[in-house]
Amino acid sequence: MKRLYGGIEAGGTKFVCMIGTGPDAILDETRIPTTLPDETIQQAVAFFASHARHGQLASIGIGSFGPVDLNPASPTYGYITTTPKPQWSQVDLLGRVQAALKLPVAFDTDVNAAAFGEHYWISNNRLLDPFVYVTVGTGVGVGVLANGRPLHGLVHTEAGHLAIPHNRQKDPFPGICPYHGDCLEGLASGVAMRARWKHAAETLPGGHPGWELETEYIALALINLIYAYSPLRIVLGGGVAQHAGLHAAVRYKVQQGLNGYIQSPILLNDMDKYIVPPSLGNRSGVLGAIAMAIALVKS
Amino acid sequence: MKRLYGGIEAGGTKFVCMIGTGPDAILDETRIPTTLPDETIQQAVAFFASHARHGQLASIGIGSFGPVDLNPASPTYGYITTTPKPQWSQVDLLGRVQAALKLPVAFDTDVNAAAFGEHYWISNNRLLDPFVYVTVGTGVGVGVLANGRPLHGLVHTEAGHLAIPHNRQKDPFPGICPYHGDCLEGLASGVAMRARWKHAAETLPGGHPGWELETEYIALALINLIYAYSPLRIVLGGGVAQHAGLHAAVRYKVQQGLNGYIQSPILLNDMDKYIVPPSLGNRSGVLGAIAMAIALVKS
Repeated sequence: MKRLYGGIEAGGTKFVCMIGTGPDAILDETRIPTTLPDETIQQAVAFFASHARHGQLASIGIGSFGPVDLNPASPTYGYITTTPKPQWSQVDLLGRVQAALKLPVAFDTDVNAAAFGEHYWISNNRLLDPFVYVTVGTGVGVGVLANGRPLHGLVHTEAGHLAIPHNRQKDPFPGICPYHGDCLEGLASGVAMRARWKHAAETLPGGHPGWELETEYIALALINLIYAYSPLRIVLGGGVAQHAGLHAAVRYKVQQGLNGYIQSPILLNDMDKYIVPPSLGNRSGVLGAIAMAIALVKS
Repeated sequence: MKRLYGGIEAGGTKFVCMIGTGPDAILDETRIPTTLPDETIQQAVAFFASHARHGQLASIGIGSFGPVDLNPASPTYGYITTTPKPQWSQVDLLGRVQAALKLPVAFDTDVNAAAFGEHYWISNNRLLDPFVYVTVGTGVGVGVLANGRPLHGLVHTEAGHLAIPHNRQKDPFPGICPYHGDCLEGLASGVAMRARWKHAAETLPGGHPGWELETEYIALALINLIYAYSPLRIVLGGGVAQHAGLHAAVRYKVQQGLNGYIQSPILLNDMDKYIVPPSLGNRSGVLGAIAMAIALVKS
């Protein structure tokens, strides 16, 4: 009997749940709106528990919105900790899923799961380390694999909140981050774009000055990630990053900003192989969660 | 017969060479001015070769100025690559030392070696991962250990060149980085301070506005390193960082800038245990090189 694995991408607006063994072998999936913790977690658990082949499930992976506690020695390991999302602070997401399904559960941030998924399932990425996944959508998030594992620490990467140059004469918008104002997420997230231009990013036409500014901020962010991690590849995903031509504009500006400082052939000549869209589309996170579930029981 | 280890901190102005087994067991040391590669490397090799207990040497570690090639699969592994320092580009530092001494040689950046040294020799640091070493001196450099090993990649961490906010009304100085102008090193290095204020950092008195600005830039840098790596400790060393009161001012500004975003007890209550001066003083790099030499033959 073939073993199956479950993946949960636990997002602030929806939980995506899948059962399967890989990108081309998904048996079932569902999307559950993120309402209150009891309701949402119960529905996710019910999806796995009621599945006809539930007995074949070997393990579950969860990639969660955060911040989350990733320290296995901590009493709140597996919790969503201090999120501003009402009712979701101090919720034991890992523990509740584990207790209900009685299966081993792997747990990480949504962006580390997405990095893991793009790294695990895409053969061209598999040996690339460090490996970075960046999402620019409602918020900005960064997942990192380094020396063979996701990067955890005091908490986990929070590079969506990097301090970046902000020319207030050119862009007087003060930023929307409740903690930092004009950090990366404060300036470049989908929420920031909507607040600055009074229109959602997806409705801004190609020639709108908002895209000039947006690609500059994303390029500054990627330059800082290149200097911080020296990654072998950067996957740039998320709803805002899907805008036509965005990847090309960002690549050009990253190269300009690096200005030849790092004499690496791929940065100098093959930038289109270095900064790439997600190969798994919008399934990087949940397929990463399935990969985490597989790695958990194989390790 | 006790085994001994050699360490070389290869800097742009001097090579520091030591023989011993640890911080409290150094048998011999020398400082060699960094002139031309042939001359400098020969003198360093001669120091180890002529030592009375040369036969006891088990291995050598080198922490080098850079950029360097750390990819063991590369034909230029162990080279100093594109340094602006005259005559030192494309110098096979690792290969020359290895060939002359016929010993195993470990090789990394000067700042990764310093991170390794502070982590390896200081018992309070030993289990802390990720672990970050920052030097603010003539230049700005960052070394990182993550998931048990130094962080290597396309090249290695170059976080001295992070793009950080630069308020040109408050600080019209354009920065001195030949590649980026006003990156972190361009604004906050010892060379930048001297160019901005026409006096070396060590001659600027405590109340000088240069220190207000300097501690702001260092705090912005550390905030970005905290968001990027989520380190369990940051060692802040280097000549500029030795200024009286600098660590306290930086800690205060880091806490202000984080603004409670990361709800971690050490960041909220014990910042003086989180951002610390190097326990090994100015020997972090060379003692780190000795630790690398030990780890090389024990692994």
